[in-house]
Amino acid sequence: MGQCPSEFDLIERYFSLGVPSKWPSQGIGDDCAIISIGHSNVAVTTDTLAIGTHFLFDVDPFTAGYKALAVNLSDLAAAAATPRVFFLALSLNKADEVWVERFSSGLKKCALQYGCALLGGDTTRTTFIGQERAPITMTITAMGEVQKGLMRSGAKVGDDIWVSGTLGDAYAALMLRTGVWQGTCSQYLAQRMDLPTPRVALGQFLQCCATACADVSDGFLQDLGHILERSAVGAEVNVDACAVSDDLKAFGPERIRQAQLAGGDDYELVWTAPTQARGAIEAFAKDSAMIVSRVGTITAEATLKLVDVSGASVCNTYHGFDHFDQ
Amino acid sequence: MGQCPSEFDLIERYFSLGVPSKWPSQGIGDDCAIISIGHSNVAVTTDTLAIGTHFLFDVDPFTAGYKALAVNLSDLAAAAATPRVFFLALSLNKADEVWVERFSSGLKKCALQYGCALLGGDTTRTTFIGQERAPITMTITAMGEVQKGLMRSGAKVGDDIWVSGTLGDAYAALMLRTGVWQGTCSQYLAQRMDLPTPRVALGQFLQCCATACADVSDGFLQDLGHILERSAVGAEVNVDACAVSDDLKAFGPERIRQAQLAGGDDYELVWTAPTQARGAIEAFAKDSAMIVSRVGTITAEATLKLVDVSGASVCNTYHGFDHFDQ
Repeated sequence: MGQCPSEFDLIERYFSLGVPSKWPSQGIGDDCAIISIGHSNVAVTTDTLAIGTHFLFDVDPFTAGYKALAVNLSDLAAAAATPRVFFLALSLNKADEVWVERFSSGLKKCALQYGCALLGGDTTRTTFIGQERAPITMTITAMGEVQKGLMRSGAKVGDDIWVSGTLGDAYAALMLRTGVWQGTCSQYLAQRMDLPTPRVALGQFLQCCATACADVSDGFLQDLGHILERSAVGAEVNVDACAVSDDLKAFGPERIRQAQLAGGDDYELVWTAPTQARGAIEAFAKDSAMIVSRVGTITAEATLKLVDVSGASVCNTYHGFDHFDQ
Repeated sequence: MGQCPSEFDLIERYFSLGVPSKWPSQGIGDDCAIISIGHSNVAVTTDTLAIGTHFLFDVDPFTAGYKALAVNLSDLAAAAATPRVFFLALSLNKADEVWVERFSSGLKKCALQYGCALLGGDTTRTTFIGQERAPITMTITAMGEVQKGLMRSGAKVGDDIWVSGTLGDAYAALMLRTGVWQGTCSQYLAQRMDLPTPRVALGQFLQCCATACADVSDGFLQDLGHILERSAVGAEVNVDACAVSDDLKAFGPERIRQAQLAGGDDYELVWTAPTQARGAIEAFAKDSAMIVSRVGTITAEATLKLVDVSGASVCNTYHGFDHFDQ
C-alpha cells in the first residue's frame, strides 16, 4: 500500500476521528450510516460523481442527473431504507442553463420515481486548471427511513450468498462505448449503464431474512469482500452462477466473468441469508419479476475461494474498482 | 440574467423539483433544511469547498479541514441547531497521505470542538484536465438537532438588524495575502480567514427573540438580502455601525466598508429581532464576551437603503460573492 493507499485504507486510517456521536450509530464502513434520532432510525449516504471520471465526457446531462441520485438510492436500498430526502452539491464549470435544465429533469425523474424530495444544496463553480475549469462534479447526500435496517456485518458461516439482477451489463456498455470491446452497445446495455435501478423494494424485503447486505457498485467481488471483512468470514463463490443478460451472453465466458465479478456500476444488491430463507427469497423474486441468483456460501476461513460450475478452483484475477488504483 | 444566471437563480429555476417530502420541511432557501423526523427536528446543510476557489492553492491542509467543517457548522448555527454528525465527500488529485493526515487533523480539531461526529463519506479522485488532475474538493453535509429553529423568513417591520463579530477581517486577510492590498497580514486577520468561529451558542440563544437569521458567508449585504427577500421586507442599514477589529481599522473607511458589507467569508450571524429584545441580546453578548452590533432597521418598502453615521444616503456599490458572477 505504501505511498498509494487505497480509498478504503485512507478512510480507515485518517477518518476515524474519534469524536463520539450523541446520535447512536453503527459507525463508518457500511453503505449508509444508520442513525437513531429520537425514536426514528435514519439512513444517510453520500456519493460524489464527476463528469470524466464516473461519467463519459459526452454524457447526456439527463443521465447524469438520474444516475447521480440513483447511485445514492442504491446505498439506501442496501441499508433497507425508504428514500425520503436528498441534498445536492453541484459544481459547474459554467452557468450552462441547457445543461442544468436537462440535468434537473433527470434528477426529477429519479426523485419522483422513488419519492425522494430535494431539500437543499449548494451550487459552486469548479476550479480553473490553466485556462480551463475542471469538469462538473456533483455530490448527493440522501436520507431514508429505516425500520430494522441492514448492514455489511452479520454474515454467518453456512449462509447463502445472493445477488440481484444480471451483473456485468453496465461494464459491458462502458467497454463497448469506449471501444475496448468491439461491437455495438445495445439499448438494453446502455440503459443498464445510464439508468440503474436501485433495489429499494428488495432491500426492504430482505430485512426479514438477510444477515448482511451491500450494493454492488465497485464490482461484485470487491463489494462482497466488504461483507466478508465486516463479518469476519470467508466465502466460496461459483463464478458462473450469476444470471447473465442475453445482451451480455454474446461476449463469451471470460468477458462475462470479468464484467460480472469486477466490472462494477451495477447498483444491484449482494446479500447473505440462511439456507432456510431460500423459499422466501425465491418467492419474493418471482412476485416482483426480479432475477436473483444464489452464487455461493459463507465459509469460516477468512478467504475468498472461486470455483467454476464443475467445482474446480478458479484463480482470482478479478479486481474491482478502487479510485486510487489507476 | 440571460446566459449567466446567478447561483440563486439557478437553484430557484431548476431545483424546485416538485417532489413532495414525506418528512415535513420548510423547503429550499435557508441556510439549513429543518426536517421533522418522528418527534425530532433535524437541520441539514451541505457545502462544497475547492482548493483554488474557496482556498488559496497553497492552503495548509489543516486549515482546509478545519474550515470545511466550520462553514457547515455556521449554517447549522444560523438555524439554531446543535451540531451532531457530518458526512465528508472528498475528491483528491492524488493519494497524498501527508496532505490527508493534516487535513483530517484540522477536521478533527473542529469536530471535537463542536461535538460533531464523522459518520461516513466517499473518497474519489478528481478528473483529469489534459495531463493534470483537477484540484481537491470537499463536500460536507452536516446535521444538527433543533428545538424551535431559526429561518430567513420572519423579519418584521420595525425589527432591529444585528450582526455578530467584527465583519471584514477574513476579506482583509484575503486581500493582503493575494497582494491586492499592500501590507502584512496580521496573525489575527489570518486566523479570522483560516479558522472561522461558527456562532453555535449565539444561534441557540437567538431562538428566544430573533425573527430571522442567516450566516454571513457571501457578504453581509447579500446575506441580509436573503432575509429581506424571504421575509418580503426592506431595510435601512448604517454602513458604519458594525464593530471594526483593530487590525482592520488601519485600512481606512472605504476599504472597511467594502470588506464589511461585501467581503464575505465571515461566518458570523446576521439576525433581526424586535426592539424589546435589545437588553437580552446585549446581556447575552456581554456574558459570552462576544461583540454584537445593531446596524439597522427592517422597513416596509422592499428596498435596501444604506446610510452613513450622519444619516446621509450611501450609494450601494457593494456586491457580495456569487459563484457565477466571475
